[in-house]
Amino acid sequence: MNKILVLFDSATGNVKQMADLVGAGAALVPDTDIRVLSVEEAKPADVEWCDGLAVGSPTNMGVLSWKMKRFWDEQMIDTWMKVDGKIACAFSSAGGWGGGMELACQSIHTVLMNFGFLVFGVTEYAGRKMTGHYGAVACKAPRETEVQESCKLLGRRLAEWTALYVHGRKDQHPDAKDIPRLTPADVE
Amino acid sequence: MNKILVLFDSATGNVKQMADLVGAGAALVPDTDIRVLSVEEAKPADVEWCDGLAVGSPTNMGVLSWKMKRFWDEQMIDTWMKVDGKIACAFSSAGGWGGGMELACQSIHTVLMNFGFLVFGVTEYAGRKMTGHYGAVACKAPRETEVQESCKLLGRRLAEWTALYVHGRKDQHPDAKDIPRLTPADVE
Amino acid sequence: MNKILVLFDSATGNVKQMADLVGAGAALVPDTDIRVLSVEEAKPADVEWCDGLAVGSPTNMGVLSWKMKRFWDEQMIDTWMKVDGKIACAFSSAGGWGGGMELACQSIHTVLMNFGFLVFGVTEYAGRKMTGHYGAVACKAPRETEVQESCKLLGRRLAEWTALYVHGRKDQHPDAKDIPRLTPADVE
Amino acid sequence: MNKILVLFDSATGNVKQMADLVGAGAALVPDTDIRVLSVEEAKPADVEWCDGLAVGSPTNMGVLSWKMKRFWDEQMIDTWMKVDGKIACAFSSAGGWGGGMELACQSIHTVLMNFGFLVFGVTEYAGRKMTGHYGAVACKAPRETEVQESCKLLGRRLAEWTALYVHGRKDQHPDAKDIPRLTPADVE
Repeated sequence: MNKILVLFDSATGNVKQMADLVGAGAALVPDTDIRVLSVEEAKPADVEWCDGLAVGSPTNMGVLSWKMKRFWDEQMIDTWMKVDGKIACAFSSAGGWGGGMELACQSIHTVLMNFGFLVFGVTEYAGRKMTGHYGAVACKAPRETEVQESCKLLGRRLAEWTALYVHGRKDQHPDAKDIPRLTPADVE
Repeated sequence: MNKILVLFDSATGNVKQMADLVGAGAALVPDTDIRVLSVEEAKPADVEWCDGLAVGSPTNMGVLSWKMKRFWDEQMIDTWMKVDGKIACAFSSAGGWGGGMELACQSIHTVLMNFGFLVFGVTEYAGRKMTGHYGAVACKAPRETEVQESCKLLGRRLAEWTALYVHGRKDQHPDAKDIPRLTPADVE
Repeated sequence: MNKILVLFDSATGNVKQMADLVGAGAALVPDTDIRVLSVEEAKPADVEWCDGLAVGSPTNMGVLSWKMKRFWDEQMIDTWMKVDGKIACAFSSAGGWGGGMELACQSIHTVLMNFGFLVFGVTEYAGRKMTGHYGAVACKAPRETEVQESCKLLGRRLAEWTALYVHGRKDQHPDAKDIPRLTPADVE
Repeated sequence: MNKILVLFDSATGNVKQMADLVGAGAALVPDTDIRVLSVEEAKPADVEWCDGLAVGSPTNMGVLSWKMKRFWDEQMIDTWMKVDGKIACAFSSAGGWGGGMELACQSIHTVLMNFGFLVFGVTEYAGRKMTGHYGAVACKAPRETEVQESCKLLGRRLAEWTALYVHGRKDQHPDAKDIPRLTPADVE
């Protein structure tokens, strides 16, 4: 089985909603086992278990939340050098566009790279004026269809990369599939 | 006179529109002299002239454009260690939200800090779901009112900080003025 | 009086040593009042008190420590929109060069910009092969002379910018002083 | 064959030296075909050819050089959406520690993620006080043994990840090999 962990911190419920969408996206890849866990519930063993993980946090001052940071600083530290090579990505919600959601995703990538993870974003568009080149981003709750699609696309891509790379399922390369990949021109 | 340079690169005209708005915002501070110049027109002497500068670039692969980078790498290099302490900020437009506009602004900050500039973003909101904590950001052209306001707010703030700090005009501190500063709660 | 806060988190004592050096550097600017406080001791009122602040953290996974993040997320949140325009900088220590100390400083800048602070690095060199363009950085304890000088230079520069900009002391502009500013060529 | 591209820009020869070391590290993985090409020589077809690539640039103002940026902005743009899923990493040399080499690597990661690449750093240490969590970094030329080892380690790790993930060679997982992986404690 393809194993995906969606790990999130959420203060208002917005990032939890994103996490559920990321999980739903991962479920679009057959034979994928998915855990969606808050940072309070998750254990290092969950990270060790997964092939790929998506980490979501509120954008707090342009950086991941202190609770999510504490998880990696304190709980995960003992697994450092034991979890190299997993595939990972990020998502975040801020109060306004320009409020630091991309930078918060970048800070998550920075943490994940330190643990030896391979991190990625999504090339294509999820809808009109919406992409996730550096992770899925939302302004407040993921209410708009294209934001929801962006979260799902991130989760699907994560499960595709792990299916392809960890499990050798070449049919799961995004370019091998029959799902159109939207360019900016497609969503004008 | 308070001296502001708005320096931009623009491939499609979108960033030029933002530059004009940033300039218009700076003009809201009395006794401010403003130059809005493309990276092709600008000279290092323009940077040396100004008290504060706003640098705008298209978001190209999440980083400032190569043309804007070349300006700092090649033309500005001889002024390195001669322009310390100016006040500066960034703005950028990408093709979609999540497309890297915040990261492009961050890359501009990185260049500017190398030259000894003091860089800043805008704390308050410019309208519903729109802020510029890390510079003014737009998706494509700055068509929406709140994006336009965000550009103007950035320019005004730049001119306020230089009026205050370079020219000692204490009435120009944003908190000393009679202009309401919007919090997220104000724009729900 | 010129008022400087050096705020640090330190797990091993390395960042505390850096903080003391940053404070010593600030003391080189006459009529400067300096507080060096750990994140456990500091209160939001200390941040409100200062004209300029230097924030130091261990490099934990390439991002500021969760304890320092918590201070800004939880304690400082009520001062948001009340402390705009202060001048600020960063410092950090990691276990090895390439270990993320620059990125940790960048994450501190990201937090500080969100609060409306003007952030800066140091243009000149502190000694052979050592600069602090994005804040003062150390590998483990600040044992080497040039690392110590870099910390002091950061603190002095912070106190110079606040003396100049907040208190109008034009003699404190780094270019107005009789202290040589080292270029890379000077330290070959 | 495992196919690795080392793509570099070098003004002084320092980054070229790093590139050769990265290539030498990749060659430690059997059955690996390696191209080391300057940004002037390389063609988009070289990027399309490879399974994994390492991108090196001088640290110019804390961001990749304008020449390397131009390659991705102008030459590579037509391959956008055609090269997703390759594995990639970064390396950079600056004039001094604290001079922005980590940030330059980060800017390379940002460009690469936009193209859909999976980016990574190296978890373990390369020697005393030297790691490459965010890519291999050097101060000036890579003269010190541990800097050279860090470059080689990055290249080897790149070839290991592509051998493992693109070619299914499970013996190439770093934890499956008989090569000790140094922790900070090992290099005290």
